[in-house]
Amino acid sequence: MKGQFRKRFGELLEYADVRIDGDRPWDLQVNREEVFARMFASGSLGLGESYVDGWWDCDRLDELMCRLSGAELKSRFRAGDIIHVLHSLLVTIPYRRSDPDAEGKVHYEQKRELYRCMLDKRMIYSCAFWENAKSLDEAQEHKLDLIARKLRLKPGMKILDIGCGWGGALHYLAEKYGVSGVAVTISPDQFAAASELYAGLPLEVRLQDYRAVSEQFDHSFSIDMLGHVGRRNYRKYLRTVRRQLHPGGLHLVQTAGSANRSVKADPWVNRYIFPGSHIPSPKQIAEASEGVLVLQDWHNFTQDYDRTFMCWYENLSAAWEALGYDNDDRLFRMWRYYLLSFAGVFRSGVSQLWQITFSRDGASPGNIR
Amino acid sequence: MKGQFRKRFGELLEYADVRIDGDRPWDLQVNREEVFARMFASGSLGLGESYVDGWWDCDRLDELMCRLSGAELKSRFRAGDIIHVLHSLLVTIPYRRSDPDAEGKVHYEQKRELYRCMLDKRMIYSCAFWENAKSLDEAQEHKLDLIARKLRLKPGMKILDIGCGWGGALHYLAEKYGVSGVAVTISPDQFAAASELYAGLPLEVRLQDYRAVSEQFDHSFSIDMLGHVGRRNYRKYLRTVRRQLHPGGLHLVQTAGSANRSVKADPWVNRYIFPGSHIPSPKQIAEASEGVLVLQDWHNFTQDYDRTFMCWYENLSAAWEALGYDNDDRLFRMWRYYLLSFAGVFRSGVSQLWQITFSRDGASPGNIR
Repeated sequence: MKGQFRKRFGELLEYADVRIDGDRPWDLQVNREEVFARMFASGSLGLGESYVDGWWDCDRLDELMCRLSGAELKSRFRAGDIIHVLHSLLVTIPYRRSDPDAEGKVHYEQKRELYRCMLDKRMIYSCAFWENAKSLDEAQEHKLDLIARKLRLKPGMKILDIGCGWGGALHYLAEKYGVSGVAVTISPDQFAAASELYAGLPLEVRLQDYRAVSEQFDHSFSIDMLGHVGRRNYRKYLRTVRRQLHPGGLHLVQTAGSANRSVKADPWVNRYIFPGSHIPSPKQIAEASEGVLVLQDWHNFTQDYDRTFMCWYENLSAAWEALGYDNDDRLFRMWRYYLLSFAGVFRSGVSQLWQITFSRDGASPGNIR
Repeated sequence: MKGQFRKRFGELLEYADVRIDGDRPWDLQVNREEVFARMFASGSLGLGESYVDGWWDCDRLDELMCRLSGAELKSRFRAGDIIHVLHSLLVTIPYRRSDPDAEGKVHYEQKRELYRCMLDKRMIYSCAFWENAKSLDEAQEHKLDLIARKLRLKPGMKILDIGCGWGGALHYLAEKYGVSGVAVTISPDQFAAASELYAGLPLEVRLQDYRAVSEQFDHSFSIDMLGHVGRRNYRKYLRTVRRQLHPGGLHLVQTAGSANRSVKADPWVNRYIFPGSHIPSPKQIAEASEGVLVLQDWHNFTQDYDRTFMCWYENLSAAWEALGYDNDDRLFRMWRYYLLSFAGVFRSGVSQLWQITFSRDGASPGNIR
């Protein structure tokens, strides 16, 4: 029976030019033979958990994941266990099983020191823009400059940041471009951080659902927030955005997306990590915006997310010992699996990274890049 | 009764800040009172035809059309006669009524001399890219350079041009970037022109439906062709494109589009001008491409089409006397109406101009602008 699982799994891996116990860096090294049964029994949950448990290894986990997901896209192979595994990887941030109620909050509630080591100096936890950048710090600033160009920011403009993280984005835009504005978050930790950061600037952070914002702004943006509103709510999101814009206003969404189909959220992700999270497809976004906002620009810089995840992984690896987690190998493996998987899935192009710019009224603001 | 039509039409125009017999350049000057009844009776057909017949005038027809269509978008006014008029303008090339069977061919079969005067030196009959351009010639070359950058053209690549017009685009790309390729057209006149132009270059033009092309290419593109395939055929079009690409191939579509809804083709346009023509919406394109090709980039340069149409109008006006049509005032009014209406509708943003880049396999080719 064990041998059968190995054989069947090996056949699936062949589609991706990956071998079990092969000698190439992206080949899968098996430590416990039971791993095959576990993967078939529990799909993506089993793949991630068994890695965290040390049942298998891989030198270049990023390359393995790139090949697995890329093989699916190229072969246009539509069914089978491995597809289930792959799809769920798109939105999975694997974590150890424990109390389900607690799990949803775990990812963002690692102590802030961990994120400070992993991220750039402004703690921007989203894809950077690497063109002409020499470091992650620069690449994150280039991303914010790109947003400023697309929104044609000018001093005195009032801007809304929907889902502001630790506040670094709007802070940078206020300092460099002289805008004022409002940022909303539903995380108390992020609210506290942004409150501190915004002191002395014409910026306000609110611990508030974005739908409750009732005033209007010149422009608005959200970074890595759309995936959290839920697939049924894209149209509501865009309608709310429209209501919050002055005539002539622009809205920029930065989001991960699915290359060419609608992806069902993985049940495990829904339960443990991001309740209701969903990666949109172009069709879903276009459908949601029709008659609500006018599409002005769709910018794809997926390859930059690969590089961002690799950079985060390097930063975290380098800092790991100092972080004082050194006895917790499972925790490191969890982070390694998450960061390198995501790098690989973006490298393959199965997941995409977009900045999409909409206008409220359709009048073209000129070339907005 | 007459007065009622004037009153009702005047009320509709108020939405757009346009007055009947007002003193601003975009106000509508009525020459024959019957024009109102005619517009209500026959919608867009009546609007265009009555202008060609001289029943009304306007100094800045482009600004009038911009206001009419812009008002619709801003007010989100959804019903009523004027909307019918406006929608149909999006795809209408008004022409004199005569034999319906002959009409469909009339537009492209004006003697080539007319197009030579109106267009740039390469006779590219589609939106130019004006960034850093000092003339229409330059702007058209910049558009082709933009396509070359997006497709990452390199010497020796084999390219397919779907719907090649008079052949200027692929000719330029072969000369400047060293590519070879195939162009297809279903117009005998355009086939003849491209055949002559391609002599001595590694280019082949075929009088052939694009679906009949059976070989594969490194990359392909179509300019202002998608609108002619029919709204039911976008998916078939993209599937055909996929089949014609080597692995890793890119496809670029340049097309006019509808800002934020699906637009029904005007019955008159369907009958007299472009049978089956249709302006796509983002949703329709995204829907058609899902699971077929991967969206890599959506570039909007709508304002450049306004400028292109204005430039064509200026060129044609300046050349009109020399063209020997000088006794045909109706013909000039038809061209004026067509070119300035389109300029205005693109200026308002109700119609959009897009270059959309797709990849066959999703792997991101890097920043493609």
